[in-house]
Amino acid sequence: MDQGSFPPLIRVAICGGTHGNEMSGVYMVREMQRQKLDQAGSVSITAVLSNPRAVDACRRYIDRDLNRCFTDALLSTPITDSTPYELIRARELNTQLGPKGSPEAVDILCDLHNTTANMGLCLIFYSLDWISLHIYKYIQSKMTSEPVRAIQLDIPLSEAYSLESVGKHGFAIEVGPQPNGVLRADIFNIVKEAVDLTIEWIQGFNSGNTFEGGEVEAYTLVKSVDYPRDPSTNEMTAAIHPQLQDKDFQLLQLGDPVFLSFSGETVKHEGEELYPFFVNECAYYEKKIAFHLARKITLTFPSISVKKD
Amino acid sequence: MDQGSFPPLIRVAICGGTHGNEMSGVYMVREMQRQKLDQAGSVSITAVLSNPRAVDACRRYIDRDLNRCFTDALLSTPITDSTPYELIRARELNTQLGPKGSPEAVDILCDLHNTTANMGLCLIFYSLDWISLHIYKYIQSKMTSEPVRAIQLDIPLSEAYSLESVGKHGFAIEVGPQPNGVLRADIFNIVKEAVDLTIEWIQGFNSGNTFEGGEVEAYTLVKSVDYPRDPSTNEMTAAIHPQLQDKDFQLLQLGDPVFLSFSGETVKHEGEELYPFFVNECAYYEKKIAFHLARKITLTFPSISVKKD
Repeated sequence: MDQGSFPPLIRVAICGGTHGNEMSGVYMVREMQRQKLDQAGSVSITAVLSNPRAVDACRRYIDRDLNRCFTDALLSTPITDSTPYELIRARELNTQLGPKGSPEAVDILCDLHNTTANMGLCLIFYSLDWISLHIYKYIQSKMTSEPVRAIQLDIPLSEAYSLESVGKHGFAIEVGPQPNGVLRADIFNIVKEAVDLTIEWIQGFNSGNTFEGGEVEAYTLVKSVDYPRDPSTNEMTAAIHPQLQDKDFQLLQLGDPVFLSFSGETVKHEGEELYPFFVNECAYYEKKIAFHLARKITLTFPSISVKKD
Repeated sequence: MDQGSFPPLIRVAICGGTHGNEMSGVYMVREMQRQKLDQAGSVSITAVLSNPRAVDACRRYIDRDLNRCFTDALLSTPITDSTPYELIRARELNTQLGPKGSPEAVDILCDLHNTTANMGLCLIFYSLDWISLHIYKYIQSKMTSEPVRAIQLDIPLSEAYSLESVGKHGFAIEVGPQPNGVLRADIFNIVKEAVDLTIEWIQGFNSGNTFEGGEVEAYTLVKSVDYPRDPSTNEMTAAIHPQLQDKDFQLLQLGDPVFLSFSGETVKHEGEELYPFFVNECAYYEKKIAFHLARKITLTFPSISVKKD
């Protein structure tokens, strides 16, 4: 594979509070704003509290999930008096950090999230982005306290719905387990280390370092699984089985327990062997998702360095 | 100490969803309702979803904390068009399960709660209630999977603000850690076991068994501790220290770390050696409580049996 070269990565946005009850990002952004941390060597940093109203209410969102509002279609819908708050806020963020897909967009957008699932630290990104893959590889090689994984969503940019899609390059950092509305120092420190390593890598890149290509493992979504429900009331009749709870990214084999009903029966995994993730994520109850299932893939990427003028 | 005798305990209420995002109680009550579990031997059981609107919204409450609405003063405040939903609902529950302090009240009211703190299983009750202490001792002797503790709030009945004060005897069952809005099967099973043991003890009591008196340990609130804050903005500047996180009921000694600031400084415990509990409870952020501190006490209680007609 050839070597790639990219223009320097000057403008970086670190966003938190896109979901108002995911506290690591909220406090990380506030701390960066308090320290007026807006320049790190060659890198100009903007720390953005994405959904301030939801943060004030300590809720995921006010009217609708902000992190599903960044498709081209939603960003171009006319605004009226009845437009949900998050669609208006998405437009503001797209003006400040984008416009999405344009030369004016920030070079890197990193959006900080938490999950109640035991997922450790995950980088989530769309399609194949070599910059994001190099940052992932760098964080993984430097961080020893926590497993570091990558999740790749195979969605074209125009349909990409989440905030990180507004940057020229972008990824979400997802860390758990942490309850919504709670700030844990151990999780905060993991997020802080990941942000620091991201900025460190960008500085190294801008200063002319060549980063070797290679291979990394990533997980790619195959399907989502809902909770068992009572057919008449549609209410859940089972919880995640204790043997699956907290076992994100551990291969689920035929016959492994996945649900435990409230009356004590075990429901077992059927079909293909896949990797569960977002197991018992709080915000996915309303989306009718008990867990996602992924396939493990290998991503290959070239050496890269900064493009000389 | 003399032996006590009490009338049979016939009417028992099991309540859940008093806080609408504490899911063990919500699903426990729904399952009891689904199974139409309204009689267990001598015991008549009512399973009550306390705050259905908050449950539907998956929030702690709609207008104000229902579990602070059961003082005599609030229960007798006139209702107007602007009365908060939870005050109206408190009145309904007091009619259904009380009235508080009257001969018509249910014999035992058990209210199911969750906490994000690592508190295991706790029974929380007001003043000295021999029935509750015997049930506590019974659960503690039978349950091996989880530490079982008691917290005693020293508040006179008229000022007692929580739902369990409506019953002739009452206690809250508090189980954690579980994130708000999430149902964990392991935590659900602990709650279910505690409810089953409570009903089992009541049946034994009604059938004429004498339960031996004795001593139990309990924790009694000394004071609450807020997070460190920026004096100008009032925003939190630190999280619970990783060495205190998840260490509920482990004696806090002079100099032990309690907070870790976002810039990395450790704040240490000063003053009396006490036991922390409700460490990093989600719902207490808005109450400006990082953790409570308790003293350990010994409660002595007599043998009891049912009063013969």
